Amino acid sequence: MNCNEFEIIKKYFTKNSLDKDILQGIGDDAAIINSNKSLVITTDTLIEGVHFPKDTPAEAVGSRALAINLSDIASMGAIPKWCTISISFPQANEEWISGFSKGFFKLADQYKVSLIGGDTNKGDLSVTVHLIGQLNRKPLLRSGGNIGDDLYITGSIGDASAGLDILNKKPLLDNEAYSFLVNRFYYPSPRIIECNEISLFANSAIDISDGLVSDLSHLCNSSSCGAEISIDLLPLSKELSISYSSNDAIHFALSGGDDYEVCFSAPKSNRKDLDKVSRKLKTPFTRIGQLMTGSEVKILYKNKPYIYSGNGYKHF
Amino acid sequence: MNCNEFEIIKKYFTKNSLDKDILQGIGDDAAIINSNKSLVITTDTLIEGVHFPKDTPAEAVGSRALAINLSDIASMGAIPKWCTISISFPQANEEWISGFSKGFFKLADQYKVSLIGGDTNKGDLSVTVHLIGQLNRKPLLRSGGNIGDDLYITGSIGDASAGLDILNKKPLLDNEAYSFLVNRFYYPSPRIIECNEISLFANSAIDISDGLVSDLSHLCNSSSCGAEISIDLLPLSKELSISYSSNDAIHFALSGGDDYEVCFSAPKSNRKDLDKVSRKLKTPFTRIGQLMTGSEVKILYKNKPYIYSGNGYKHF
Repeated sequence: MNCNEFEIIKKYFTKNSLDKDILQGIGDDAAIINSNKSLVITTDTLIEGVHFPKDTPAEAVGSRALAINLSDIASMGAIPKWCTISISFPQANEEWISGFSKGFFKLADQYKVSLIGGDTNKGDLSVTVHLIGQLNRKPLLRSGGNIGDDLYITGSIGDASAGLDILNKKPLLDNEAYSFLVNRFYYPSPRIIECNEISLFANSAIDISDGLVSDLSHLCNSSSCGAEISIDLLPLSKELSISYSSNDAIHFALSGGDDYEVCFSAPKSNRKDLDKVSRKLKTPFTRIGQLMTGSEVKILYKNKPYIYSGNGYKHF
Repeated sequence: MNCNEFEIIKKYFTKNSLDKDILQGIGDDAAIINSNKSLVITTDTLIEGVHFPKDTPAEAVGSRALAINLSDIASMGAIPKWCTISISFPQANEEWISGFSKGFFKLADQYKVSLIGGDTNKGDLSVTVHLIGQLNRKPLLRSGGNIGDDLYITGSIGDASAGLDILNKKPLLDNEAYSFLVNRFYYPSPRIIECNEISLFANSAIDISDGLVSDLSHLCNSSSCGAEISIDLLPLSKELSISYSSNDAIHFALSGGDDYEVCFSAPKSNRKDLDKVSRKLKTPFTRIGQLMTGSEVKILYKNKPYIYSGNGYKHF
């Protein structure tokens, strides 16, 4: 195909937005927005062969590139609004770009996120999304946790890591559980709506992007406390449990970060309110332990200390 | 070295900022800022081997990655405020990261830009900066040009492309003019201060990132007009003129985009004001032609039509 940068942007990335706070969208040296609220800002990159396998469908790449950023905005208790994409690909393959754009805008439309700018380049396949959200109330920080807070996890964890493992092993057997797990990797669910309600009742939150133990230790570090969690309480999906041994499932749940579920802490007195939110949104919030004195993340398994040898996702 | 992502961020990218509008900087899932002004948002990527040669000094990569984004904010007539960096490198080489950080913060400090977040990854060397600025007055858009407006260029053009040509040819001869041209590629001057004053008197502006003819045609397209420029009027540096033939210098000036100078249009009645600003800031603003009816960029050389065969920077 003969698309150049400007044609690609026009055809696949320029969509009219009804957002009146966008004074200038795509098409000038920069975009202009109005906001009378505090802004929450994040950025995350996906690189082919590093963050996703080489044959990942373009639609999944587009969706996931936005989802991982939505997850950061979610875990701050904010509402996503405006984003930019910087995308590099070796050649302008129109079929791939069309799929990417489809996956991206499906999720963007769902969360009313407007694409206001970006950059396309020739290079190895890589996508950096930058997302700006707005705060409607106080932010949900990593640092707000108190000793004695319950620790919760949204949804189920370990699925996406198992999905990636399945993709890497390329098993011949295709079954429903495998599809579920692979789709949890391709299309993680950003917990925007959940966290916006959770923020009324929670003290602290972090999205699990590098692995539960690794990310929970960041939360503990910021909140100047330790934590105790119980493996027996971890929310594991049926699909994960039937596809992998108990040991493997635990490994994925403790060390795998690709689900982008949210770990949060809340006072015990808010249990009933959080249960209500969970039922209303039909998203499980599972209590897996609590914040403690100290600075370590202690893990129990069948009421005994568990020796954790995983490390979470390593960037280098 | 054994630095992991968190150590790298702490050591090389976390600086205290005095900016009271930053409610949460680096260290949570996202940053939080306050702003009571309209925001201007841009992003640009630099990829090794695509946008800069393989042996470019780390300090120059750090500086240039920010400079090209500052230039976009400048050409909107805005003031840069907050940025994020997404950086990928094959391995965490501490000497390189230290140099990159030094180049980046030297320019960031000069323009009072705070780094509020980012992302580090393993991958081919590539840097995406995302920059947010604030508007103090009406923005300088591509679309505001009027037929009859004078067309101006800040500084001199063609230098950085010549500098890149020198780097690619790796000449044995090292001389002052070559150093000047190479440094114009490594360290382009963002025209923040200039454009902030220009915006009082100009109708439209664009930064020259892809080449004068290419970028001017975008400005014309957005302003629904054509333009006529004269090669004899182009601001060429002494260093460019003594290092290259007249034909080569013209080619670099018309097609080379790496200087990140700004092309702007202003009513003829504002000439005196713009001359005053230019003298005050000691930055030449050179009139190279005017906006016309039609939709083409016409080029004159010695008062005759000039056949332009360049294309500007091609992203693919």
